[in-house]
Amino acid sequence: MVKRTRFDEESCPVARSVDAVGDWWSLLIVRDAFDGSRRFGEFQRGLGVAKNILSTRLRALVDAGILEQVPVGARHEYVLTPKGEALFPVIVALRQWGEAYAFDPGESRSELLDRRDQQPLRPLEIRAADGRLVTAADTEVRKPA
Amino acid sequence: MVKRTRFDEESCPVARSVDAVGDWWSLLIVRDAFDGSRRFGEFQRGLGVAKNILSTRLRALVDAGILEQVPVGARHEYVLTPKGEALFPVIVALRQWGEAYAFDPGESRSELLDRRDQQPLRPLEIRAADGRLVTAADTEVRKPA
Repeated sequence: MVKRTRFDEESCPVARSVDAVGDWWSLLIVRDAFDGSRRFGEFQRGLGVAKNILSTRLRALVDAGILEQVPVGARHEYVLTPKGEALFPVIVALRQWGEAYAFDPGESRSELLDRRDQQPLRPLEIRAADGRLVTAADTEVRKPA
Repeated sequence: MVKRTRFDEESCPVARSVDAVGDWWSLLIVRDAFDGSRRFGEFQRGLGVAKNILSTRLRALVDAGILEQVPVGARHEYVLTPKGEALFPVIVALRQWGEAYAFDPGESRSELLDRRDQQPLRPLEIRAADGRLVTAADTEVRKPA
């Protein structure tokens, strides 16, 4: 297994999230769970990942409360918990950035669509408490005292 | 260096983003760049990371077009490019998830505030093209033909 640095002592919520999710594989497992994968074999086919890597990551995601195991007949399936479902904006943000910057013009890519009208979602907007749009330059980080 | 699987052949923009950003260290470097770090030593102090790890990650982020090196006197500084600035929603999404799920009640944490009124930002909202709020269940992924 790849050794991973732990960030969970940090007071920064970004670092804590990074620590809780695990690694990139884990994030792609979460992506596939959003896309409908539930069974071990489905995740394996979707990701093309070795069984031992997948097995370790699934267990870690269950331990982190992001996935839960649900018995279905003689086997079990993996389902996102509310904590896991709450990662949707992270997946959408990564997807929209990738759409904008990681493909050549005309290169084919998967699309995330609204089921109702088959249109892509709106780009994410960062808004202040009063509703106005803000950029990174309009914000600052306050460290704990 | 930690061996990393490459996802850049995938047609999924989430996987491409994951590949372009690099690893978690790289994402935390981007976070620190948003928070004002520009010099090698600033990143090093902020992250408490070994010089060789930081050096490799900074070079990869420059190669990926996320950071650029700007000469300042006899040295240089690292500044986010527009492509790097566009990662702000990813950082905000991770931060908001961490705030909600990765801290005990009352535990101290850093905060991302609007400079104008020192209030936290609004939670990210996922909206369809027509403006209505959607959850993951309202969406579907269409793979390329």
